[in-house]
Amino acid sequence: MTSEQKERTPLNEALKKLTVALCEQGFAAGTETVSVTESAGRITAVPVRAALNVPHYDASAMDGITTRAELVRSASDSHPVTLSADQYTVVDTGDPVTEKHDTVVMKEYTLPGDGGTIQVTRAVPQGKNIRPTGEDIKAGEELLEAYVRITPAAVGAMIAGGVNEVSVLKRPVIGFIPTGDEIIPPGRAPAPGEITDFNSSVFAAMLREWQADVRLYPITPDKKDLLQTALAKALDECDFVLLGAGSSTGRDDYTVEIIAQTGTVLAHGLAVKPGRPTIVGYKDAKPLIGIPGYPVAGVIILREVVKPVIDLWYHGWAEPRCYCDVALAEGIKSKPHLEEFARVHFAEEDADPPLAVPHQRGSGSISEYMRSDGILRIPVGCDGYAAGDVVTIELLD
Amino acid sequence: MTSEQKERTPLNEALKKLTVALCEQGFAAGTETVSVTESAGRITAVPVRAALNVPHYDASAMDGITTRAELVRSASDSHPVTLSADQYTVVDTGDPVTEKHDTVVMKEYTLPGDGGTIQVTRAVPQGKNIRPTGEDIKAGEELLEAYVRITPAAVGAMIAGGVNEVSVLKRPVIGFIPTGDEIIPPGRAPAPGEITDFNSSVFAAMLREWQADVRLYPITPDKKDLLQTALAKALDECDFVLLGAGSSTGRDDYTVEIIAQTGTVLAHGLAVKPGRPTIVGYKDAKPLIGIPGYPVAGVIILREVVKPVIDLWYHGWAEPRCYCDVALAEGIKSKPHLEEFARVHFAEEDADPPLAVPHQRGSGSISEYMRSDGILRIPVGCDGYAAGDVVTIELLD
Repeated sequence: MTSEQKERTPLNEALKKLTVALCEQGFAAGTETVSVTESAGRITAVPVRAALNVPHYDASAMDGITTRAELVRSASDSHPVTLSADQYTVVDTGDPVTEKHDTVVMKEYTLPGDGGTIQVTRAVPQGKNIRPTGEDIKAGEELLEAYVRITPAAVGAMIAGGVNEVSVLKRPVIGFIPTGDEIIPPGRAPAPGEITDFNSSVFAAMLREWQADVRLYPITPDKKDLLQTALAKALDECDFVLLGAGSSTGRDDYTVEIIAQTGTVLAHGLAVKPGRPTIVGYKDAKPLIGIPGYPVAGVIILREVVKPVIDLWYHGWAEPRCYCDVALAEGIKSKPHLEEFARVHFAEEDADPPLAVPHQRGSGSISEYMRSDGILRIPVGCDGYAAGDVVTIELLD
Repeated sequence: MTSEQKERTPLNEALKKLTVALCEQGFAAGTETVSVTESAGRITAVPVRAALNVPHYDASAMDGITTRAELVRSASDSHPVTLSADQYTVVDTGDPVTEKHDTVVMKEYTLPGDGGTIQVTRAVPQGKNIRPTGEDIKAGEELLEAYVRITPAAVGAMIAGGVNEVSVLKRPVIGFIPTGDEIIPPGRAPAPGEITDFNSSVFAAMLREWQADVRLYPITPDKKDLLQTALAKALDECDFVLLGAGSSTGRDDYTVEIIAQTGTVLAHGLAVKPGRPTIVGYKDAKPLIGIPGYPVAGVIILREVVKPVIDLWYHGWAEPRCYCDVALAEGIKSKPHLEEFARVHFAEEDADPPLAVPHQRGSGSISEYMRSDGILRIPVGCDGYAAGDVVTIELLD
């Protein structure tokens, strides 16, 4: 039986099994407390409430004087009212309005008088030009819900509201173990048959963009005991473990054996293109995923399998994905039993709808992926699209 | 003459003056060389070319055997061709195809024979199942243009193409000096009249999102000698200096004096709302900007004055901004002599077009800004919009 003929699990089925299994195992992000001043970009773990009113006192909204409205009720340009020194206080914007006063007269409507007096040339009602206590934020008010990203402005609102520390979800620590006798680290020229490991750097950069911390492990040769030792160490140190599952036929069989001996395999071989030799499993509450070795297959599986689990970790919070309708400049065929993730690039981005060309290159070409502008998801049951068809693509970067 | 009556410079005029002055002074990002494995997210300083072909050798695309096509020309299921041990080599996917062979027969079409021989059951043409040298990337090929963001996939393509180091634009170092006798650092309860400094944290988080490094200086009281010392230190250590310009009438006059003594003031008071008390200047090739103290005004001026200068530093590279057409649920008035940046939030995001409500709150409310979904730019000459008008907003976060 060839790999092509083996039963392949649909992507959504594999993801559902993994989600259910992880939730049963108590999969959940830990929380930690960080200083609000350093919290931008983190995801809240609980709702955040203001500790203080903002403003935290009745504040003058203008430069001028505070006084009592009843004292200046009759003031006008032609009949200024003179206030004695104990009837007013000179204030700048932001200064407190004390309890004995109830209004602010703008500087423009005052004239200095004799002996510490001041003349007021305009009547002002009670409360005028005052930012009352709590106008912006009330003490106890919910500033942020749980499981939202802390924006720069939210940092400001928390500090203003007297919140100094905030409980946030820990970033998941994701380990990646590159495997393969033929793989060498970057930095020296590869001999024929040797492949420089670039998947580690690509995957690390993607995972960091998704708010994960990454541990890259050394390249592990295809030896069972070494792989088992590496996997045990990674499971000890990380929240998720990704293991290179190889790219040649049968190499993923080798990886699946290691994963099955350590944890539980939920799916081996997905009905996706590229990305067949994927292994979806877990150990306790930790996802344990075999990632195909072909770089584009690896990237697609990170996006379609690992990213949704990161979103689960973050209780559904995720950067929005961007979509765009395009007309296809060329047709593309797809096998109806597979879900295909075809790369496309814009031929005429300014056309309406924009014109996009699907790529014909294989999953080994990282430069092809680098030059693509979007991904066209061709669902199971669809045998492709014709030139001119209008389809929705997900935009990349 | 009140501040309101002073001549105010239009935003685009101030920006143009600043751009011209900085370019005359030789404003330019420095460059630095970084390891490709750590280069994701950086902006290239020069075009990047591949040093190696990818693949760097003729590679088998399948598990099977390499041989010469002419030897198996007549092979079929009914008439297999037997190859002697010296006529073929067993290969896995990715193994080199040596010069003496010119095709790959898939494992599925071979059967083991006696004495090291193998039987081939299908004819294959020359070059079949081979990824030729340079198929993906050719040595010398331009992988990346100058002044583009290095994506995770670009990291992979560079490593695969034998590029170990890359020249990138330095991140600008931007200093912010908060000022004001009434400002206290976060962490202790403010007394009436005291304001906790949250602008520093908000601005730092925004600037970091825009790929800048940030130096936050201590809060400097409103004393000329202290401000001059702080400004000199920041100019020595940073590529841009932002100085709190105060929020009350006249406070920006104080800041403008300090800036004018150190460098050149191009504009004092912008025809924008919020953001009037902005100071646009420079010292040598370093932008020197006075930022209004009201938080929303400060945020708008960071977005509309500082961000374009960061984009200039990065030679025009910038994260794309996202726009959306909305119908206004309520009207909004604007003074025709000002360019206004009104905040809006979605009332019905799923409507077509979505329904958005413009905010009426002032520029002192960071919580108002935090809760807004977008910014409506009302140009000079426009006195506002009526309920039901369809307008374009820029989406926030």
